[in-house]
Formats: sequence, C-alpha cells, structure tokens
Amino acid sequence: MSRTVSSVDAGQTYMELHHQLHRIVDRAMSSAGLSLGRAKVLMRLDSHGPMNQATLAGLLGFAPRSVTETIDGLEGDGLVTRTEDPHDRRARIVALTESGQHALEAAMTVRNKTMDEIFGVLSPAERAQLVSLVNVVRTNLAQGESDCGQ
Amino acid sequence: MSRTVSSVDAGQTYMELHHQLHRIVDRAMSSAGLSLGRAKVLMRLDSHGPMNQATLAGLLGFAPRSVTETIDGLEGDGLVTRTEDPHDRRARIVALTESGQHALEAAMTVRNKTMDEIFGVLSPAERAQLVSLVNVVRTNLAQGESDCGQ
Repeated sequence: MSRTVSSVDAGQTYMELHHQLHRIVDRAMSSAGLSLGRAKVLMRLDSHGPMNQATLAGLLGFAPRSVTETIDGLEGDGLVTRTEDPHDRRARIVALTESGQHALEAAMTVRNKTMDEIFGVLSPAERAQLVSLVNVVRTNLAQGESDCGQ
Repeated sequence: MSRTVSSVDAGQTYMELHHQLHRIVDRAMSSAGLSLGRAKVLMRLDSHGPMNQATLAGLLGFAPRSVTETIDGLEGDGLVTRTEDPHDRRARIVALTESGQHALEAAMTVRNKTMDEIFGVLSPAERAQLVSLVNVVRTNLAQGESDCGQ
C-alpha cells in the first residue's frame, strides 16, 4: 500500500479493469442472448420511453448509422418496433416490445450476477472503500467537467 | 465508509466513473486532433507493428467494417498507410507513418494530462489504496476469467 502510484498509473489501472469487466460482462450477456451493445439500446428505451433514432443515437453516443444497424437486428428479433414519427415523416420512433422488456430483464440478471461475482471478491469494507474513492473522483468531475481537460 | 455497498452497486459505480472518464478523455483528445477511437488504432499499430486489417479489427474488438472506416480517415490524414499483403492479395497491411507516430504521441500527452488532473484529486495514499483494491479484483479475474459468468 505504501508504494508511490502516479495519477496517470492510477487512471491506467482503472481503465484496464474496465476493459476486462466490459469484455466479461459482454461475453456473459451475449451468451444469454443480448450483447452489451444491444442491451444498452434497450436500456435507454426502457428508461426514457419510445423515441426517434437520432435522439437514441445521441443518448448512446453512437454514430446514427451504427444505431440503425443495431435497431435493424433488434427489430428483426421482435425486441423493438419502428413506427413513423407523426411530427417528422423522415424519422422513425423506436419502442421497446414486451419481448424486448423480457430480454432486457434476463440480460440484466446475467449482468448483475457477473458483477456480483467480480466485485464480491472484495470484503464489504473494501467495497465501501472503493466506492468512497471512486466517488471522490466523480464528485470532483461533476464540479469541473465543463472545463476539465481543455 | 460504514454504509453497506452491494457488489452490484460497487460495479455500477465503477462503470459510471469509467463512462465519465471515457467521455472526458475522448473530448480532450479529439480537441487535440485525435479521437480516442482513432488513437486506439494507432496505439495497436505502434505496439504490434504493421498488420492486416482483419487482425487489427480482432485486436480492437471492432467490427471489420468500422475499422475500415476509421482507417480510411487515418489514411486520408496521412497517419497510416495501406499496402497490399504479399501473402493475401485481398488483404491490406496497415502501418503507422511518422506523422501518425507524432499524432499519437501528442494525443497520449493530452490523455495523460487529463488522467493526471482527474486522479490527482486523490492523495498519494488514496491512489495507492484505489490501485490496491482494483488489483485485488484484477488478480481474481485473471485467475477465473476463463469460466467467469458462464
């Protein structure tokens, strides 16, 4: 615990664990039928309700074209529907179906189980410590994000 | 520090900070001329040397088509070259140019400065603690990754 860790090294270590988490969670969710990328689309529709594709792409931070491809697949599997936007004839409103809702719930169960296995190696005190340290960083980001890194 | 934090909540908090880091680092790097997505391509070419596009896509975990688009842009800006693969006439070997090397170095300087600002809010002792906790999780993952979440 006493060795010197630079801020850059701490950031690097943080990012590396995230890459591993992402890969493991994606693999577990994909084997349950819904990749992390597809699940993220359904999550946004679940929390925000039906919306047009451009809004959805913006929320996800994806390029419009890659959202179109993902939605094509989800629509083909009956997990979302696409209908004409009454306010804009060129736009399409995407909505979660009941099957989509169930698929999302199943995928989230797998995700949470995986997270539980991964972070369950820490003791309750260690988890509280980790969350406390992460929250120090997050609180500072929330205050300085508008000018950070400029 | 004494409140109970579930493993899932710890994982969720971890992922949320990562989303913020990713957005801030990407924004800072993009304003320095190289998005995080483009920088990742150059990083792989820098560390592994020239390689064909399919290998590069595999290393990055990207779809071949999205790698092609990114490489089109990088080639247009003179940061990579594409030449015919002597072993496979349909394949193309991608290599970093000297300009690409310089652009990557400049982007990494911005990335490290941003990381330094973000994780510099922790004291040296807190950083050591954070890295130590992350490493407990990572060590466990390295041991169990092959069957984790299955």
